[in-house]
Amino acid sequence: MTTYQSPLRDFQFVLHELLQTSSTMQACGQPEFDEATIDQVLAAAGRFASEVIAPLNASGDEQGCRMPAPGVVQTPQGFKQAYDEFSRNGWHGLACSPEFGGQGFPAVVDTAVAEMLAGANMAWHAYPGMSHATYVNVAANGSAEQKALYLPKIASGAWAGTMCLTEPHAGTDLGLLRTRAAPQADGTYRITGTKIFISGGEQDLTENVMHLVLARMPDSPQGVKGISLFIVPKFIPDAGGAIGARNAVSCSSIERKLGIHGNSTCTMNFDGATGWLLGEADRGLAGMFVQMNYMRVLVGVIATGVMEAAYQKARAYARERLQGRVAGTRSSVQGADPIAGHADVRRMLLTQKTHIEGARALALWASQLGDLQRLHPDAERRTEAAELLGLLTPVVKAMASDLGVESTLLAIQVFGGHGYIRENGVEQHLRDVRIVGLYEGTNGVQAMDLLGRKVLGDQGRRMNAFLDLAAAFANQCSHRRGMAEFTRPLQQLLAQVREVTAELVGASANDPHASGAAAVPYLRLVGHLALAWIWARMAEVAIDRSDSADPIYASKIATARFYFQRMLPQTAALRAEIRAGSVTLMRPALDLL
Amino acid sequence: MTTYQSPLRDFQFVLHELLQTSSTMQACGQPEFDEATIDQVLAAAGRFASEVIAPLNASGDEQGCRMPAPGVVQTPQGFKQAYDEFSRNGWHGLACSPEFGGQGFPAVVDTAVAEMLAGANMAWHAYPGMSHATYVNVAANGSAEQKALYLPKIASGAWAGTMCLTEPHAGTDLGLLRTRAAPQADGTYRITGTKIFISGGEQDLTENVMHLVLARMPDSPQGVKGISLFIVPKFIPDAGGAIGARNAVSCSSIERKLGIHGNSTCTMNFDGATGWLLGEADRGLAGMFVQMNYMRVLVGVIATGVMEAAYQKARAYARERLQGRVAGTRSSVQGADPIAGHADVRRMLLTQKTHIEGARALALWASQLGDLQRLHPDAERRTEAAELLGLLTPVVKAMASDLGVESTLLAIQVFGGHGYIRENGVEQHLRDVRIVGLYEGTNGVQAMDLLGRKVLGDQGRRMNAFLDLAAAFANQCSHRRGMAEFTRPLQQLLAQVREVTAELVGASANDPHASGAAAVPYLRLVGHLALAWIWARMAEVAIDRSDSADPIYASKIATARFYFQRMLPQTAALRAEIRAGSVTLMRPALDLL
Repeated sequence: MTTYQSPLRDFQFVLHELLQTSSTMQACGQPEFDEATIDQVLAAAGRFASEVIAPLNASGDEQGCRMPAPGVVQTPQGFKQAYDEFSRNGWHGLACSPEFGGQGFPAVVDTAVAEMLAGANMAWHAYPGMSHATYVNVAANGSAEQKALYLPKIASGAWAGTMCLTEPHAGTDLGLLRTRAAPQADGTYRITGTKIFISGGEQDLTENVMHLVLARMPDSPQGVKGISLFIVPKFIPDAGGAIGARNAVSCSSIERKLGIHGNSTCTMNFDGATGWLLGEADRGLAGMFVQMNYMRVLVGVIATGVMEAAYQKARAYARERLQGRVAGTRSSVQGADPIAGHADVRRMLLTQKTHIEGARALALWASQLGDLQRLHPDAERRTEAAELLGLLTPVVKAMASDLGVESTLLAIQVFGGHGYIRENGVEQHLRDVRIVGLYEGTNGVQAMDLLGRKVLGDQGRRMNAFLDLAAAFANQCSHRRGMAEFTRPLQQLLAQVREVTAELVGASANDPHASGAAAVPYLRLVGHLALAWIWARMAEVAIDRSDSADPIYASKIATARFYFQRMLPQTAALRAEIRAGSVTLMRPALDLL
Repeated sequence: MTTYQSPLRDFQFVLHELLQTSSTMQACGQPEFDEATIDQVLAAAGRFASEVIAPLNASGDEQGCRMPAPGVVQTPQGFKQAYDEFSRNGWHGLACSPEFGGQGFPAVVDTAVAEMLAGANMAWHAYPGMSHATYVNVAANGSAEQKALYLPKIASGAWAGTMCLTEPHAGTDLGLLRTRAAPQADGTYRITGTKIFISGGEQDLTENVMHLVLARMPDSPQGVKGISLFIVPKFIPDAGGAIGARNAVSCSSIERKLGIHGNSTCTMNFDGATGWLLGEADRGLAGMFVQMNYMRVLVGVIATGVMEAAYQKARAYARERLQGRVAGTRSSVQGADPIAGHADVRRMLLTQKTHIEGARALALWASQLGDLQRLHPDAERRTEAAELLGLLTPVVKAMASDLGVESTLLAIQVFGGHGYIRENGVEQHLRDVRIVGLYEGTNGVQAMDLLGRKVLGDQGRRMNAFLDLAAAFANQCSHRRGMAEFTRPLQQLLAQVREVTAELVGASANDPHASGAAAVPYLRLVGHLALAWIWARMAEVAIDRSDSADPIYASKIATARFYFQRMLPQTAALRAEIRAGSVTLMRPALDLL
């Protein structure tokens, strides 16, 4: 079976040539992240991914997590050793602040590393991935004491973190949650309730776990405005970080799932567990959203990694598998040609390549917006980056996860019947990646977030700012050699999205179902706009270097053409679906459905 | 968990009202198949599906098939008892000739029954489903003695049948196959070789198995023109059907797969096994294609059944699950409404409903073409039906299997995170249905069959005949009340398909990759044409009865609108993809892919 190899050259293309990470970081006052330093990290992470965790991917899927005793979760063989090696090499702290023992690398580099890890072993990566998301949360919402106590432990990997949101009857609608937090005389809270679907809720990798738990105080308002956020450690630490008594939180069961078998998905019981308020009372959902938004971009990155892994298997198979004669050829030594020569197999491989490279560039760009939002000296640039990132976070999440499913389905298809067989390893990627459209807010929730909150919420102001940005790029380089084939359809799409957006602003004023009926195709339309924009930008970079001997540039231009000619036309269907309006969905005759 | 229920009313709509099965059968000289008789069969089959095999679906998936001893395959618990009950009740022979102990029902009824069985338990249904396909093969290609010996055994279910085509190095490209058939003095052949992916190759359901095996005789030409078809029984029967000595054919291993765990997928070793030539020497592939074409329509039906099962679960969940307030409503008793009221959830449910009802009507119509081809007194009508069926068989297979994947993905999505959990049962349907795009010729092969062989093979003659048929319908009823919204887009699509087809006939004359590059989107375009046509026909039937109190008619009209307004626009993207041509795929710069 093909082992995952990090697509290093493509990461370099995006980070160095497209996003110019080093000079961006220089402008942010961090000149130490030059290309050589970034390349060292990428290369080392790629080796860890290929050599340490990729070999545990199929076996981890096979073994899954187990509960050898009540409350005890055993991760698959080798996961703990790999985790320890990851910790020893300081990877947990890559993007953590030096103040807490981290290395302070830009998020965009951390994102590239995350893609490699998730591509090599999605289930394994979910442990450190989720932990880092809790780091982001506590760094944003924690008190000085909380940060000093918890963040070095997360940054070193000694402790892990989880997010505890979902309850059996409260998933998308967190306003329904019932977990209670009773204030105690000592300023702590007694947390009581049941949380489900807690990734890494219990495991055998770390000495302690910091659960971040949404719960409701006794006098809090109903609904989402009465939810607070708490830190509930598995073992209660002293101020110096030495762990003490076991807290009253335990894992009662783990889920059997379609995929990511190696990552524990736990039902967690909080039986009067001691918790500490994180951030302000009743503002827990907003606090959690810092982490959630981080996770949503990460989810796009994870999907990209899994697509890449599946694509590598499909490409290798297509180069080796001999079936049929390539059209237009008459002879071949073996009586059959590698299927990678057949036009339809190339279509399937190129669709995957295009999905991957587009999603990768988009997710890395979104991560760079995070760096700019955090670090840029110019407040206006920070605000601009924050608004763009907020707008596009649901797009990155949902678009990449949809592409992830399509892409892994195609990877299986390249294998024919052999793709259905477990030992060939490609079907696992579909099972794994299927979760990404469901967790961290379903893709339907992402679409409502984009259209309802981000677009209609300000009458299209932020969306128009993105459209203006893309239009400025298109106008500026439309007359450059070779660019018209990309900028012209981009300009056309920009006008169409502007028009559709204005229509939706109008329609939603009178029809309560207008945005719900349009949300998913609208997100996908905006996703194509973002992809078209990033592909045009990549084409520009590649055309500039097209007399280089490095074959990546010609390949990038040809792939951009593939995107524009074979993928972008899907926007016509999406616009029609949006314009069909809510009446197609809400007719009473359909209540029989 | 929701148990599968046969969608009886929709089967009645399609069989009685759309396809007018009884009067069609009367025209074919078989007046005994009146509506009441057909309804009895549908109701009884629905009960068997819901009560006997649906309860074995999840447990069969869980247990899978096992090999307790070399060469021995154990099917999941309960499969054998259900099989025996199926046999006792005469279901195997439903569409078999009375001459061989069958009941001679029209194929269109058998197809409806197959959809129910596959929906209730796809893995279980694959045993009798494959057996019946071998019945079709032997009935078409067998000698009088072979028919007399084998067909009653298959029709009673006492024996099963398999098709043995694939070898490790020969899947799509059967010309590469190496299994040898050495003629013996007594007129039999010694069969030697290894076959893989043999569905039901070994099981514990029947006393004997009739393997239909493709193999090559010593002096046969290379490639597909040197392949013959053989009957290789597991136990060698005497002329009276009493089983005798064990033949030298055995199962060496079974595959572990993404889905259909309850159906054994076997590697079969033929070690000088005794075989009998079925049909003419060196014409085995043509002989096998009788069965393959039967299977391809059946595959579309299977996909439809699985979609239906997943949809029933999603619909039940959406009616029960309370999350969020439906837009435009202010109050509800529980503080949250059933998610079936949210526009985006309705979009997901209606997409499934539309996929299912469209695919069902198309597959049943294709089955009726099989009846007409076989039974109609008018030779011209027989030829017309045969040509249409040949043209549309790959469309039914590939379109329904693609829709099957989309539809089961959506069913999971309706469940949110709960869809990812095995015990909720919906993820199994995705795993099961994923095989249908891969087996019986991958969907890429179907697309090449449609475009390469069926359309370009006669310069579009047969395709134009189908377009003419659909155009005649559209023209004839475009002025009827309420029909313009369906016939106008249908007419537009007909013109577009005619144009694209002519373009492809032209392009393929000069470009060897033109058809390979266009095949898959072309099949999907023709699939939409077929769906649009069948939806317009269904709308016509429903409009005629729209003052009936039966709510199916209003629902059918509203669903037809959903199809035309929200699904049909995908054809714009498909036409653009077709027109992008082969250059987008064959650029040398893409060889790095």
